[in-house]
Amino acid sequence: MTKVLPAEQAIGVFDSGVGGLTVLKAMRELMPAEDLLYLGDTARLPYGTKSPRSILNYAGQAAAHLQRRQIKLLVVACNTASAVALEHLRESLAPLPVIGVVEPGAIAAVSKNPAGRHLVLATEATVSLGAYGNAIRGLDASAKVSELACELLVALAEEGWTHGSVAESIIQKYLEPQLGLPAAERPQSLILGCTHFPLLRDAIVAVAGTDVAIVDSARTTAAAVEGFMADRQLARAQHDGSVKLLATDGARRFARVGGAFLETSLSANDIELVDL
Amino acid sequence: MTKVLPAEQAIGVFDSGVGGLTVLKAMRELMPAEDLLYLGDTARLPYGTKSPRSILNYAGQAAAHLQRRQIKLLVVACNTASAVALEHLRESLAPLPVIGVVEPGAIAAVSKNPAGRHLVLATEATVSLGAYGNAIRGLDASAKVSELACELLVALAEEGWTHGSVAESIIQKYLEPQLGLPAAERPQSLILGCTHFPLLRDAIVAVAGTDVAIVDSARTTAAAVEGFMADRQLARAQHDGSVKLLATDGARRFARVGGAFLETSLSANDIELVDL
Repeated sequence: MTKVLPAEQAIGVFDSGVGGLTVLKAMRELMPAEDLLYLGDTARLPYGTKSPRSILNYAGQAAAHLQRRQIKLLVVACNTASAVALEHLRESLAPLPVIGVVEPGAIAAVSKNPAGRHLVLATEATVSLGAYGNAIRGLDASAKVSELACELLVALAEEGWTHGSVAESIIQKYLEPQLGLPAAERPQSLILGCTHFPLLRDAIVAVAGTDVAIVDSARTTAAAVEGFMADRQLARAQHDGSVKLLATDGARRFARVGGAFLETSLSANDIELVDL
Repeated sequence: MTKVLPAEQAIGVFDSGVGGLTVLKAMRELMPAEDLLYLGDTARLPYGTKSPRSILNYAGQAAAHLQRRQIKLLVVACNTASAVALEHLRESLAPLPVIGVVEPGAIAAVSKNPAGRHLVLATEATVSLGAYGNAIRGLDASAKVSELACELLVALAEEGWTHGSVAESIIQKYLEPQLGLPAAERPQSLILGCTHFPLLRDAIVAVAGTDVAIVDSARTTAAAVEGFMADRQLARAQHDGSVKLLATDGARRFARVGGAFLETSLSANDIELVDL
């Protein structure tokens, strides 16, 4: 294998499935010169209902595969894997830098609403680990954080029912207990703590109203990656960046659902299947 | 290991997760004298979005594990695994008898509505394989069969939102194109071709009306198992049957969601974790 200069290497992006494509899309918009190498571990999705032991194991295998393909930075574009496996991946992949989605989201929430009330919408696993709560309180001891598991929103995004009355009625049922609180207790920011949820942003705003700040962890993570690469002089300039998509199973489904996530048309031939 | 007489051995029941518990529950009600050994492959659920190659591999490992524990019959209580892997399992486990959920459902639908119009509600994988369509047309060449992937209903059942307006609005959105047809084209039977869907039976009836026959593959499979065991003199009498639950991951979640499926209270200690 020929040695490629660090700045010319791709950025690896890893997720349990197609959800991380919302992060890939935000990165592509912000950093069009970068080559992006995405791996969706579709054979073992969803991580959100798996045990920490399995998630550590799966994330380690996926990250090692991307590292073997020479990447300059790894983005863990999966909230569950970021919550469970980030420290473990940083240790095992060092000196490769690893950026997760939880910390950028927590920083954005705290900057928008210092000493504020935050509601994190996430999968069961992310909620049960309290990762956003810990990250936010670590940055702002006065912050109040609630976390809410919204498993159905994942299926809703994958079905493509991202707008309209069905989406809004599901979101309403999840948010009702919080939105019905007195104004002084109601959340001031909603953190989209699952990579699928940015697709539901419009429906969430329709239910929650415009007084609540929406923190989209796809966009905040893309911005964190851009800042990190500028600091380390890893950014690539004057290049027509590419996107390469890998999956561990189901290329046809990946193309269909992933195409909707990326707002582009994909065929199964655009997806390379890999064994981990 | 002491040799146990065939009739005194347990019936093995295998599913990708908790959905097959609807089949287990129907079997328990019909055959209270039998010992039931259930294995949910929760580490790798859902099978519904996986490729046939992975499903064959996973189902083979799960079935082999149950066979090693001395069972007299294997029930594949997962529509996707039945559609993909039944023949393969019958060959590799012979002479152990193997019963899936697709054929009993197809037989029940055809008996209720000969030369009828059937609509199968299932996961993407079951639909894409056309397993129910093939089984029904094999029994009744005049039958008309449509199959509809309803992935969101799986998440709905697992969230426990089985009744009320949100469940009905989701079911309405899926069924609208079929229910809106002229009476002479409208389906006469709805086949619940995913083991999660019997939990949504009331909501489905509320949307579809009482003119449409509901074929519940959990109940039809339990009846098929009872008939098979009587034929082969494998049934057990005068015994206080037991239920043993195995899972490959996430005992706490299995206990919480599975308890709701079985309408009983389970704790993580009731679930034995196994490695396949």
